[in-house]
Amino acid sequence: MATMASLFLKTPGPSQSLSKTQKTHFVLPLNLPVSYSWRSKFRAVPGARIRCGPLIEPDGGKLVDLVVEEPQRDLKRRQALSLPKIKLSKIDIQWVHVLSEGWASPLKGFMRESEFLQTLHFNSLRLGDGGSLVNMSVPIVLAIDDSHKNRIGGSTSVALVDDKDKLIAILNDVEIYKHNKEERIARTWGTTAPGLPYVDEAITHAGNWLIGGDLEVIEPIKYDDGLDRFRLSPAELRDELTRRNADAVFAFQLRNPVHNGHALLMTDTRRRLLEMGYKNPVLLLHPLGGYTKADDVPLQWRMRQHEKVLEGGVLDPETTVVSIFPSPMHYAGPTEVQWHAKARINAGANFYIVGRDPAGMGHPLEKRDLYDADHGKKVLSMAPGLERLNILPFKVAAYDKTQNRMAFFDPSRPQDFLFISGTKMRSLAKNKESPPDGFMCPGGWKVLVEYYDSLTPAGNDRVPEPVPV
Amino acid sequence: MATMASLFLKTPGPSQSLSKTQKTHFVLPLNLPVSYSWRSKFRAVPGARIRCGPLIEPDGGKLVDLVVEEPQRDLKRRQALSLPKIKLSKIDIQWVHVLSEGWASPLKGFMRESEFLQTLHFNSLRLGDGGSLVNMSVPIVLAIDDSHKNRIGGSTSVALVDDKDKLIAILNDVEIYKHNKEERIARTWGTTAPGLPYVDEAITHAGNWLIGGDLEVIEPIKYDDGLDRFRLSPAELRDELTRRNADAVFAFQLRNPVHNGHALLMTDTRRRLLEMGYKNPVLLLHPLGGYTKADDVPLQWRMRQHEKVLEGGVLDPETTVVSIFPSPMHYAGPTEVQWHAKARINAGANFYIVGRDPAGMGHPLEKRDLYDADHGKKVLSMAPGLERLNILPFKVAAYDKTQNRMAFFDPSRPQDFLFISGTKMRSLAKNKESPPDGFMCPGGWKVLVEYYDSLTPAGNDRVPEPVPV
Repeated sequence: MATMASLFLKTPGPSQSLSKTQKTHFVLPLNLPVSYSWRSKFRAVPGARIRCGPLIEPDGGKLVDLVVEEPQRDLKRRQALSLPKIKLSKIDIQWVHVLSEGWASPLKGFMRESEFLQTLHFNSLRLGDGGSLVNMSVPIVLAIDDSHKNRIGGSTSVALVDDKDKLIAILNDVEIYKHNKEERIARTWGTTAPGLPYVDEAITHAGNWLIGGDLEVIEPIKYDDGLDRFRLSPAELRDELTRRNADAVFAFQLRNPVHNGHALLMTDTRRRLLEMGYKNPVLLLHPLGGYTKADDVPLQWRMRQHEKVLEGGVLDPETTVVSIFPSPMHYAGPTEVQWHAKARINAGANFYIVGRDPAGMGHPLEKRDLYDADHGKKVLSMAPGLERLNILPFKVAAYDKTQNRMAFFDPSRPQDFLFISGTKMRSLAKNKESPPDGFMCPGGWKVLVEYYDSLTPAGNDRVPEPVPV
Repeated sequence: MATMASLFLKTPGPSQSLSKTQKTHFVLPLNLPVSYSWRSKFRAVPGARIRCGPLIEPDGGKLVDLVVEEPQRDLKRRQALSLPKIKLSKIDIQWVHVLSEGWASPLKGFMRESEFLQTLHFNSLRLGDGGSLVNMSVPIVLAIDDSHKNRIGGSTSVALVDDKDKLIAILNDVEIYKHNKEERIARTWGTTAPGLPYVDEAITHAGNWLIGGDLEVIEPIKYDDGLDRFRLSPAELRDELTRRNADAVFAFQLRNPVHNGHALLMTDTRRRLLEMGYKNPVLLLHPLGGYTKADDVPLQWRMRQHEKVLEGGVLDPETTVVSIFPSPMHYAGPTEVQWHAKARINAGANFYIVGRDPAGMGHPLEKRDLYDADHGKKVLSMAPGLERLNILPFKVAAYDKTQNRMAFFDPSRPQDFLFISGTKMRSLAKNKESPPDGFMCPGGWKVLVEYYDSLTPAGNDRVPEPVPV
């Protein structure tokens, strides 16, 4: 049985002590050297002649890297001393992280108005080459208030600091423009109903201005939470995928505990890719690590749960890469799923698995899902800038009572299947009940029970506390 | 002095009696035969070598024409007898009109879900050729309620009738899908505030389903309001523009009374196009004829006002084509201005004049404009599918008190200029006061005074009645 550590790590030890180039990689034996180029025009097409080789090209042709080289850092720190300061929230820092490593390539910093408008209206950005579009569906913006704006005055650069005044980045050639929150929310979420988690957390009380510009990030963003070593950048993932000689990379975004239905799906996807003619399809199992809403299972617990599930051996460690995707969640359904997919192109994935109601949630006011459950995969398949990505819709998995395991739903015998929703799963775990055998390995289930137990120390029915971000 | 009739008409007489091919054209002498093709790749580029010849290609390469040929009409009427019926509102019929003549080319009917989603998320439609995009920012959809849906059952075609049960069109290969009004409104208007005129008129009380399909329109849509002869189809406009040997066509969308500032702008635009090297730029002066909100001046009165202004000789009849654009208004600002521009490409325009806050209005609840006044022209210049259209931003015209006429604002002497807003203009006309000399010709102003007078027969301050649509 593979441990999670063996899936992740070549070298043990706290990531904080490792410089960027020394960052650890995966332990697995497929360490074949392979020559490739980020700029290659190669694209894996199902059914076409398959060859090992370069991964899908990043958006814009080149992976953005905004982290200042080590020798320049002190100079930048000194330069920043004379600049107006903006204090970043934890979510702002997560976006700096996302931008710094090129998940949003070709974006080089917080959006200026032209990029913001293109994102709101077209979910895509036009490249400087005059015509071609890259996908960009979620505004990556930095809000400031009137006092910040006044303080910045005519300065063309500003220093971005954390809550302890530590310099995180410098934003250059800044542009300040109006933050029309209502319009941003309506166009991003398709509703302005109160109670959208990201809106409540990061927009409602934010300033009435947005500031865009080019980022210089002083050093790699770290969280010192014991999970930094799992946060592989797109460049590091590309290195690893290349080392493994992957000729197809299929990404699986998740922000929930993983169960055997997921594992079945991922295993089946690999089988289908092999049938298509790929020789070495690799799974990028990619839990989201940024802001999530209060009633989602926090990252620390999810990673523990994933570890137990992987120990259970349901996924092959030789063809699985587990890493954390640093983006915050918007819960913006069909709009956000494009961001989730686009970012994975930049990490080297050319296949994206999409499920029912991706990045969706219940309507904050009405008794219904906020989004049509099929719109996510439909919008994804039509989105400008995602033409190069192969979309793999989820097959529906459910608990097959005749076999006591998760299986693909067979519509000819619906009576044999049990659907265990997220709500049902949470309710079972909260009540320390067990799901049917074969739904999830006992170790993984135990983590969930412990998590919910940790929320109710006095055994009462206290509502989970929001996880601070 | 040219009369409006001379600008419009070659042959007098009620349009109703004229078949489509006999429809009258313009009286002006430039009747030069010229050979051209809709499918030509010619594109007028400022600064490039200019030649007379083909107009800009319609979106999708071919102008859509959904009107059934005369010999087939009776057959279609008989076929429709056995189909489930849907009653169209007046706004629905305006959209049938828009679709029937190819203003929305390459759209061939009310949107199916795939087109609806692409419009909401990307403001554009992907063509069947696999990659290229045409602009389509406003959903053109037909709402039905549960009882309609039940009545349609498994029928693949439905008959669309007017309020007198007259057959307007047949919708074929229908697809019925959910009408999520909140999401449609939020993504189209960037707000869900109550009080959006089109929403109140056409969405709030509409059914919870949308039905898409391919249209067969039984005969050309007519309104019998004395203005049908001014409603030139894109094909007819292209004929006329070609006859006039136009080598640049600049479109001016308007839904308000025209004043000398507009005239100055249009004259100045022609001068600029001549300077660019065009030999015969033609203005398409194109008032919107569909649904407008209650406090806009109704079409009939606007056309009377335009006639008086044109009689005043401020525009050259030889280089001006006046026609009615049959679309309803959304008042959706930057989203809608794309539709206004895209439709004019289909009518042969390769230049589009865009002003401050196009298709905008005040926020229904807050004391501010709903949209940033500059977003319209910015979004227009970035919109997918409008790359072929040259965007000409409005220069600001104001009343120059030193010259007693409208002139382009000179920021070096702001004290000399008077800005007369629409609100100010309405308030003057309502109070039967006169604007400064040179703002608008007296005949045009008189029409406005008469219009507002007609709203207050007892001389009291009654609020204008909504114009039924």
